[in-house]
Amino acid sequence: MVTTMSDLYDSRTDRGTAIIARQDPVVYAGGAYAQALSAQQLASYESDGFLLIEDLFSAAEVQALLDEIQRMGKDPAILGGEEVITEPGSDALRSVFRVHELSPLLNKLARDPRLIHVARQILGSEVYIHQSRANMKPGFKGKEFYWHSDFETWHVEDGMPSMRALSCSLLLTENNACNGPLMLVPGSQRHFISCQGKTPENNYRSSLKKQEYGVPDPVSLQLLAEQGGIRAMTGGAGSVVFFDCNTMHGSNGNISPWPRANVFMVYNSVENRLSPPKYGLAPRPEHIAARRGNAALVPLDAPATVHAGD
Amino acid sequence: MVTTMSDLYDSRTDRGTAIIARQDPVVYAGGAYAQALSAQQLASYESDGFLLIEDLFSAAEVQALLDEIQRMGKDPAILGGEEVITEPGSDALRSVFRVHELSPLLNKLARDPRLIHVARQILGSEVYIHQSRANMKPGFKGKEFYWHSDFETWHVEDGMPSMRALSCSLLLTENNACNGPLMLVPGSQRHFISCQGKTPENNYRSSLKKQEYGVPDPVSLQLLAEQGGIRAMTGGAGSVVFFDCNTMHGSNGNISPWPRANVFMVYNSVENRLSPPKYGLAPRPEHIAARRGNAALVPLDAPATVHAGD
Repeated sequence: MVTTMSDLYDSRTDRGTAIIARQDPVVYAGGAYAQALSAQQLASYESDGFLLIEDLFSAAEVQALLDEIQRMGKDPAILGGEEVITEPGSDALRSVFRVHELSPLLNKLARDPRLIHVARQILGSEVYIHQSRANMKPGFKGKEFYWHSDFETWHVEDGMPSMRALSCSLLLTENNACNGPLMLVPGSQRHFISCQGKTPENNYRSSLKKQEYGVPDPVSLQLLAEQGGIRAMTGGAGSVVFFDCNTMHGSNGNISPWPRANVFMVYNSVENRLSPPKYGLAPRPEHIAARRGNAALVPLDAPATVHAGD
Repeated sequence: MVTTMSDLYDSRTDRGTAIIARQDPVVYAGGAYAQALSAQQLASYESDGFLLIEDLFSAAEVQALLDEIQRMGKDPAILGGEEVITEPGSDALRSVFRVHELSPLLNKLARDPRLIHVARQILGSEVYIHQSRANMKPGFKGKEFYWHSDFETWHVEDGMPSMRALSCSLLLTENNACNGPLMLVPGSQRHFISCQGKTPENNYRSSLKKQEYGVPDPVSLQLLAEQGGIRAMTGGAGSVVFFDCNTMHGSNGNISPWPRANVFMVYNSVENRLSPPKYGLAPRPEHIAARRGNAALVPLDAPATVHAGD
């Protein structure tokens, strides 16, 4: 195993766990590349590592997206592909990947000014979709997603060079205290938690159901949570959470009868395209980590402002 | 198998699932047997099947109880007994039973006027402790408790005749959207969900870790939740939730670093003492269902009022 000196964010090496200070900006180019968030929203994102904007999409828009994902979940052509992940221990739909290429409606969503201009503004460049997915977390039996930093996985398994990507989660159902909302640790984006353990080949096949590598240690998690607390992203359908690729997050299970359906779009800077994975690992498939489909996305032609009144 | 015609709350028989209307009062004797709750609180309890009273115990009282339970969790004499339940897949402490007999401090809690007079008022008689326990739900790995009515289990496995018992949960840590708070279905106490499947002997050994019998069907659960919604009992340490023995409840897991520690006391009316279990099942042990220790509890001598200003 060869680890170069220049890897700022070493993880899954022979050494133990470590907390490494972030070397990259959270907001690039002073947030001046595009105009979408207000100065206050931008400062909040930079400080917390995330931003919740309520009611950004209308009920009709949300319903159309839900209908489309339900349709995709029953489409034999899509169900047969690698893009579909079922719940551990059942056939219930958990996630569909690469939705922005499988569906014209979701392709438009990826290029929607309310999302893409926020990504362009924060990342300070043009952007493309590194990964997109719909997470269904069905009622009664949705299992938890344990704590993780997306960047830790993307850096090791996908060769993403820097922390210059963000996720955007559009809530398609109400997220409340009962159905396992997304939980984020404010300020955690400033610390890279280097994890223990090596990564087996084809880890992604099981890690999307239950992650066993790249899992942060309890001591580091406790530290981050004591420093920043934990914020549950509860809100109505149509709300959107933007969060940095290194913000620590997870969610509890869902025994409520209500599904917790979200669409995720991961925007990556075109200046942060993927290198080879670490440690000689084989690249993960295109629907998990885009290498071919990484041309800059063209924003839809519509108003860019997502804040009102300032 | 013999099922008498007089069993109003048949469950786990050969027939399918069913929803049976409650035949018992929720508040007995007009709530006049003792004076603890206000008329408004009593009406709310009767309508919802539960009542949350915030900040009923002081921070110092809560700390003393937490210290005592932590001590019990490390006491070799207690750890060796049947009263201690660990988490599935780990040695982490999940529950300690019969705490009101294992600890003088928790015995006083069971007789505390802020709890016992509420139980006497609602149940319309003297009361005893049918079951007591501390649930620790540790951080990171606390697993969910799936939906259930306590009465369904107590009726079938313990021979509890009528719905004349209630649980009282004292929150020893903050319960919030992040650490798997108790969730209750308002109004569900009015419906008995008769469950499918027979009960194996010694079911309690595994059912306390993960319940597989007496599990309500998804259609009935959906119906109850659509009618009444779901309320998460979030509140600060020192808050208390009283809930009827037939109120449908459960809780999600806890991946947060914060334990969700509660003490439960189950008060049963002395006029509702246990009969033999159904279907010739052997009685469960004393720490699960008191048969010997069922003398009326003597309340501590202190003010009974738990409401302020009316």
